[in-house]
Amino acid sequence: MAAIFEATCTAPVNIAVVKYWGKRDTSLILPTNSSLSVTLSQDQLHSKTSIRASADFTTDRLWLNGIEESIEKNKRLVACLRETRALRATLEAENATLPKLAGLKIHICSENNFPTAAGLASSASGYACLVYTLSKLFELPLNASDLSVVARQGSGSACRSLFGGFVAWEMGEKADGSDSRAVQIAPETHWPDLQAMICVVSDEKKGTSSTEGMQLTVKTSALLQHRIKDVVPKRMDDMIAAIHAKDFPKFAELTMQDSNQFHAVCLDTYPPIFYMNDISRAIIRIITEYNKDGVKAAYTFDAGPNAVIYAPKENMAEIFSILSHYFPGAAFDDSLNLVKENPEKVAAGLPQNFDARISPVFAQGAVKQILHTKADDGPRTLDSAQHGLLNAAGLPKRLA
Amino acid sequence: MAAIFEATCTAPVNIAVVKYWGKRDTSLILPTNSSLSVTLSQDQLHSKTSIRASADFTTDRLWLNGIEESIEKNKRLVACLRETRALRATLEAENATLPKLAGLKIHICSENNFPTAAGLASSASGYACLVYTLSKLFELPLNASDLSVVARQGSGSACRSLFGGFVAWEMGEKADGSDSRAVQIAPETHWPDLQAMICVVSDEKKGTSSTEGMQLTVKTSALLQHRIKDVVPKRMDDMIAAIHAKDFPKFAELTMQDSNQFHAVCLDTYPPIFYMNDISRAIIRIITEYNKDGVKAAYTFDAGPNAVIYAPKENMAEIFSILSHYFPGAAFDDSLNLVKENPEKVAAGLPQNFDARISPVFAQGAVKQILHTKADDGPRTLDSAQHGLLNAAGLPKRLA
Repeated sequence: MAAIFEATCTAPVNIAVVKYWGKRDTSLILPTNSSLSVTLSQDQLHSKTSIRASADFTTDRLWLNGIEESIEKNKRLVACLRETRALRATLEAENATLPKLAGLKIHICSENNFPTAAGLASSASGYACLVYTLSKLFELPLNASDLSVVARQGSGSACRSLFGGFVAWEMGEKADGSDSRAVQIAPETHWPDLQAMICVVSDEKKGTSSTEGMQLTVKTSALLQHRIKDVVPKRMDDMIAAIHAKDFPKFAELTMQDSNQFHAVCLDTYPPIFYMNDISRAIIRIITEYNKDGVKAAYTFDAGPNAVIYAPKENMAEIFSILSHYFPGAAFDDSLNLVKENPEKVAAGLPQNFDARISPVFAQGAVKQILHTKADDGPRTLDSAQHGLLNAAGLPKRLA
Repeated sequence: MAAIFEATCTAPVNIAVVKYWGKRDTSLILPTNSSLSVTLSQDQLHSKTSIRASADFTTDRLWLNGIEESIEKNKRLVACLRETRALRATLEAENATLPKLAGLKIHICSENNFPTAAGLASSASGYACLVYTLSKLFELPLNASDLSVVARQGSGSACRSLFGGFVAWEMGEKADGSDSRAVQIAPETHWPDLQAMICVVSDEKKGTSSTEGMQLTVKTSALLQHRIKDVVPKRMDDMIAAIHAKDFPKFAELTMQDSNQFHAVCLDTYPPIFYMNDISRAIIRIITEYNKDGVKAAYTFDAGPNAVIYAPKENMAEIFSILSHYFPGAAFDDSLNLVKENPEKVAAGLPQNFDARISPVFAQGAVKQILHTKADDGPRTLDSAQHGLLNAAGLPKRLA
């Protein structure tokens, strides 16, 4: 039996507070503007990937959530593999004692611990996990920023999932994309109090894919260029300053304004693109009402109807209580002990001065699930013997 | 009994294809950008106003849709009265033979022939009708453009309802607003083929008022200034050229892009303003699908969820058939004989190559009413003896 080389890692989801929308180079995935995100805890949401290299393998194979997928057809995945193998080959050429992994076939097995149908940012965590795990398998001497340049070519926002905490993706200027990379603005330990609540919103119809949508916006929105040139650069500076100062009201205001503007340029696209629905808009009205005497929470929406609500830990029980009023029947896993530690606050219903009329109470299941999580660390390396997804034969332990 | 002077007129609704949103002067109602509208037929939608001046009256009185309202509290109405009375006083000073009307008290009775709760543009037709009727009562030697300067101070878009056909409101530059006036781009006879279908959309919650909303956008939207400076001037030129050329696809594209952009700057407002709901967006998807092989219809949405669909007459039966598929149970008054003249087309359901999956079929009443109308003429003067709203005593004939 040939020698086995294997790595198993998890990588987090990140939710942008200054949004990425539009590519200046679609094959290298170079964005038209810089962006900034918060990395959410892998305890609630993560991708997990095991990659094994073995001379016994006759072909590269990939399983995603238990289903085998073609590698060749996925140009972005091929690019990530090619780049990391080339880096490994260079190392091997420089150091003859290294195992010859660059030439071996590999088996990749990747799973998300959250429903992919929920429309959460699974491609960010997925590609970050792929590239991070490859870098561990190949023992590449790259820091997370260097690695982000590779992950970016899998899925743009994946580059930001290589760090914990608060992460900027600097758009860069070079044609080869070498300066379009993620950098950490502040680690999760800087602002441990920042939490998030994800509302998984029911949606009758899947919207436009981000890949298609953003290029249609680049092509047809008269307002996008103004956003790129005149709005985002200052907003990035302001957001970084707000994070450094842990100024939640400023952080929240910028987050909400940027979410609004992202959906505004989608609407200014021709034909227009909609990601939010009436439930999403009710959540905006609810958070706006909640903030009327001071900013206590921020909503943000990616390319789908789901809301992510950022807030300091101390406001979360009140927010959950309000959400539960308008969206009865949402599933909730009390993984951060919100209900356990704040039973009265959670059961309180609407706050005293809250105008209940700002939204109707929705039917059961309008919000399917509420996930409570927090800002947290970047990719984690696990022990493949204990946590690996592949069995002795190099096939998924769990097959769908 | 004192001499009676009375005028009775009707004025039409207009629906903008280049939208007005934002004031540079809130008391004179001077806009931040020029706009352009199509005047819709009074046969379907109109305001009707009777105004009588009499020495028997002891005070100015106003009835709107059968309910007496305070004149004093309505600064905009006071402004329209003051301006037209001043013009009458000047005439009387110049010509001693004229009846002395400027000093008499008046009774105003105004009604809309369409439901005000429907969120249609009743303030435009209402103020246009008020000012037009005052001009007839006072026999003011003003053309419609001069009169539009007065009507504008009642409700901005009212200035455009003083003309039939295709009407631009030129924003003007002067501080006193004297050059902020409506001009006719083309009469309704230029493009008699242009029709409209209004979908009265069910809405659970009334949105922000336009008056409040637009000033919040002026204050907080980073994108509005770009729209004002860089988008609208060219769009006005392009729209005027499309109307002159009767180029429907171009007219439609500009109309849809401008509606999208108006709602985009509403969304870029902080906190964001929503006027469209899931039903409105379904109508956009339906029209977009209908246009996939060539532009045959244009949607536009004002500050509410109702859609106005412009299209050449020949496409209207097909459009009605599609709308009836997705929005069962909408009330329809066949006032333009659409169903009578096209029974087969109207009953045909979706066209052959139409992808039915672009929207779910909505529940009964999601669209409450469909109104079929067309581009038509400006205010009409009626015979008060036959059509007046006031009885012999100068009180409304019909009281709610």
